[in-house]
Amino acid sequence: MPQCSATNPVLTTGEIARRLGARLDGPDDRQITRLAPLTDADPESLSFVTDPDRHARALADSRAGAILAPGECRVAGATVAAWLIVPDVYLAYARASRWWGEPRRVRDGGVHPSAVVDPSARIDPQAWIGPGVVIGAGSSVGPRSVIEAQGVIGARVRIGADAFLHPRVTLLEDSRIGDRVILHSGVVLGADGFGFAPDAGAWCKIEQLGGVRVGDDCEIGANTTVDRGALRDTRIGVGVKIDDQVHVAHNVEIGDHTAIAGCVGIAGSARIGRHCAIGGGAGILGHLSITDHVTIHSMTLVTRSIERSGHYASGVPHQEARLWNRMLARLRRLARTDGTSVRGE
Amino acid sequence: MPQCSATNPVLTTGEIARRLGARLDGPDDRQITRLAPLTDADPESLSFVTDPDRHARALADSRAGAILAPGECRVAGATVAAWLIVPDVYLAYARASRWWGEPRRVRDGGVHPSAVVDPSARIDPQAWIGPGVVIGAGSSVGPRSVIEAQGVIGARVRIGADAFLHPRVTLLEDSRIGDRVILHSGVVLGADGFGFAPDAGAWCKIEQLGGVRVGDDCEIGANTTVDRGALRDTRIGVGVKIDDQVHVAHNVEIGDHTAIAGCVGIAGSARIGRHCAIGGGAGILGHLSITDHVTIHSMTLVTRSIERSGHYASGVPHQEARLWNRMLARLRRLARTDGTSVRGE
Amino acid sequence: MPQCSATNPVLTTGEIARRLGARLDGPDDRQITRLAPLTDADPESLSFVTDPDRHARALADSRAGAILAPGECRVAGATVAAWLIVPDVYLAYARASRWWGEPRRVRDGGVHPSAVVDPSARIDPQAWIGPGVVIGAGSSVGPRSVIEAQGVIGARVRIGADAFLHPRVTLLEDSRIGDRVILHSGVVLGADGFGFAPDAGAWCKIEQLGGVRVGDDCEIGANTTVDRGALRDTRIGVGVKIDDQVHVAHNVEIGDHTAIAGCVGIAGSARIGRHCAIGGGAGILGHLSITDHVTIHSMTLVTRSIERSGHYASGVPHQEARLWNRMLARLRRLARTDGTSVRGE
Repeated sequence: MPQCSATNPVLTTGEIARRLGARLDGPDDRQITRLAPLTDADPESLSFVTDPDRHARALADSRAGAILAPGECRVAGATVAAWLIVPDVYLAYARASRWWGEPRRVRDGGVHPSAVVDPSARIDPQAWIGPGVVIGAGSSVGPRSVIEAQGVIGARVRIGADAFLHPRVTLLEDSRIGDRVILHSGVVLGADGFGFAPDAGAWCKIEQLGGVRVGDDCEIGANTTVDRGALRDTRIGVGVKIDDQVHVAHNVEIGDHTAIAGCVGIAGSARIGRHCAIGGGAGILGHLSITDHVTIHSMTLVTRSIERSGHYASGVPHQEARLWNRMLARLRRLARTDGTSVRGE
Repeated sequence: MPQCSATNPVLTTGEIARRLGARLDGPDDRQITRLAPLTDADPESLSFVTDPDRHARALADSRAGAILAPGECRVAGATVAAWLIVPDVYLAYARASRWWGEPRRVRDGGVHPSAVVDPSARIDPQAWIGPGVVIGAGSSVGPRSVIEAQGVIGARVRIGADAFLHPRVTLLEDSRIGDRVILHSGVVLGADGFGFAPDAGAWCKIEQLGGVRVGDDCEIGANTTVDRGALRDTRIGVGVKIDDQVHVAHNVEIGDHTAIAGCVGIAGSARIGRHCAIGGGAGILGHLSITDHVTIHSMTLVTRSIERSGHYASGVPHQEARLWNRMLARLRRLARTDGTSVRGE
Repeated sequence: MPQCSATNPVLTTGEIARRLGARLDGPDDRQITRLAPLTDADPESLSFVTDPDRHARALADSRAGAILAPGECRVAGATVAAWLIVPDVYLAYARASRWWGEPRRVRDGGVHPSAVVDPSARIDPQAWIGPGVVIGAGSSVGPRSVIEAQGVIGARVRIGADAFLHPRVTLLEDSRIGDRVILHSGVVLGADGFGFAPDAGAWCKIEQLGGVRVGDDCEIGANTTVDRGALRDTRIGVGVKIDDQVHVAHNVEIGDHTAIAGCVGIAGSARIGRHCAIGGGAGILGHLSITDHVTIHSMTLVTRSIERSGHYASGVPHQEARLWNRMLARLRRLARTDGTSVRGE
């Protein structure tokens, strides 16, 4: 099966400066073959430092061939060959990482003989369909998209161009994902939402007849689930980034460029704005709205709509267990002696 | 491979009224081909409203062919063709959804040539075994049950009639699931429970020798895990509904018709009663019992047995981060100045 | 395909006493064929009791063939045939469980014809590669290791000896796991860490160029994810035990023999010491360190480094919902009337 080949491009310091628009302080002909943290870097490594004062010692000891830095870093004893001065070091590092990382996701087009592809599916000749992949009727896979081993693509699924599905991704019927979407292993898009009506002590299933739509440039982490809508589609905007083990329930809408950290749970019909950041382990109740540019701290429980941008929290920082138990006891006692509401119990 | 065909039945308003026992206010010959929310509905759509006053405007603007409603809805300007009056709108909507949804889960019987089925497994001729499915020795699959692509069924697994396993479900050895069970993609039943005995600074594995039993009419959401018991079976009753990303540890027992929302974790040997509702992200400690008809709110930590039906909570609603930090500081200060227990530190 | 055969060894009470170094009180020739809890045990069962006083009644009623106990258990009416006196009952039970459990994980060597193995991969002749498994270029699988159905092994992965990968495990490129590692179904090692740099309102992906390393004797639960490092490897030490549905982010380091319960989330670059115990549903923020021998209680949020061994908590025990709401209201009122910080708002 196709494997990526050139994951280690060789670039000169001059070429790197040109690509990043960096000011080069040092020779322009050093050959760089990899990215590395300061302490691991060797003379062929590009490294980076966002806060030179804080990392002065690591800088002085570093053997890096070149370092991305926010300004002059005259460090006594530093043997660094070249400095690359950029206004946003972290972004420059991100861009540089793509030179080495993106080639890993390139495959030659073709269909592995063990794949089971419905004759009515339209697979672009430049797309790669890996071993054991199953593709249902009426689905389409766009140019240069890759479905790695054992992906299961249901009926009437649409996959855009340059998408990359890591091994073992499941897109159930009627899911649609845009261009350049990256889905990690174990992702499930389009499982039934959790909908049941009480029926004489039992539950009557509400069939989930909507789909899932994921916009261009989204990335969804390993074992994350996004359920199909009950009647409309569950919708994830453009450029949304979702970490591992997240649960997105039916009918949820997530605005463009919002980022969601690991283990978050978002209940049904919640609407989350654009450019939000949801911390790990947060829970968001259903049928509420969160406006744009909202930051939710880790392990916060969002219980009502948020109409004003800003930071919100309810996670409790750890304490020594003995102190924490005392805090809880104190709170309970306060509640019991609370004159305004104790009456009538 | 077989695909469901008729997912869009066409029904007249008269036929719908008859099936639901609804009182029909309007023509009985309108053809309905789909379900839709009020605002998306067209003249071929059936829609529903549980609270007509609250949705008066959407009702007035709706173009639905028919609407399920709890009573007369004389709405000025409404162009709705027919009203279907029912005592429980939500349940009627659920029932109607099944006319369109259930046919999606019907397959012709057969075994896909790429499936790997042990010769000793008994597959009912009316069951469908999809591409890439693996079935171990001594297992059985009942009539009309469907195992979609890449399901892995271990040895001695028993699957009842009319069960539906979405793609990529794993049932490990000795698991047993009843009739009409629905398992969503990524479900794992029967992985080892988390059992280890301390052994001179390391951990000695306690082999997990029990199984998993799931009763009739259960539904389990995507990427949920139910571990096998240590010595006895982990047991899930009849009609239990579990959402995505839930973890059910070894030896847990869950009573009939209990519903568990997403991202819940249930620790080992917990016993949960019948007709309970567990909110999303809740955690339930091990070796405790929860009686019947208990509601646990979202992100609550259940730390001891609950012997009385009712509502329980410990989730903290979000606050503006600045206010929340002040609340925490206040609580810490209170605990420190708490005369009754500060002595002796 | 190969199935384990002898999962039910038959042992005499004498042989069991010898293997466990137990003092035998009773006949040495009773045949024991299984392990069972006190209440289910029959005359061929070995059972155990850690606290005889607490379980006096179950002991009196038990029909077990032999019972592991911490000392003499003269129980009136007990029909137990033989007592096995050991200093650590729970550990003895764990050891005994392995006689019945470990044979389940033994397979004959070979490669199932449906597996897709790159010609450059080195598979030990004693290893078993199950149906539908995919193995990438340059990977190696050690002696007696087992990869069950539909495992996906990427390029350049190294798997030690006697490892057992349950069905549907994914090891992405450059992952390395040691000897005797057990990975449960749905585990994903080596998905991309969640790294993005802000870029003019959108996110620029930071390619994840590190790998994942898992030490000898680790066990990782169903649907747990361990992301690859950004530049270095994410590292899990020796003898680490991780439960189901856990998320371990990029660059995390976990020390030897630490145990992590279900649904825990560990954010990027956190370092956790040796011999720690992390309770279910806990969240650990990134870029912090936890020293050795730390216990974190369930659903605790660790927000800063922990430099002293001990117990830490912030999980809130459930209350009746009405009381809990009053506690929250009281806390909010306190924060508002807090003279020291209310000024200036």
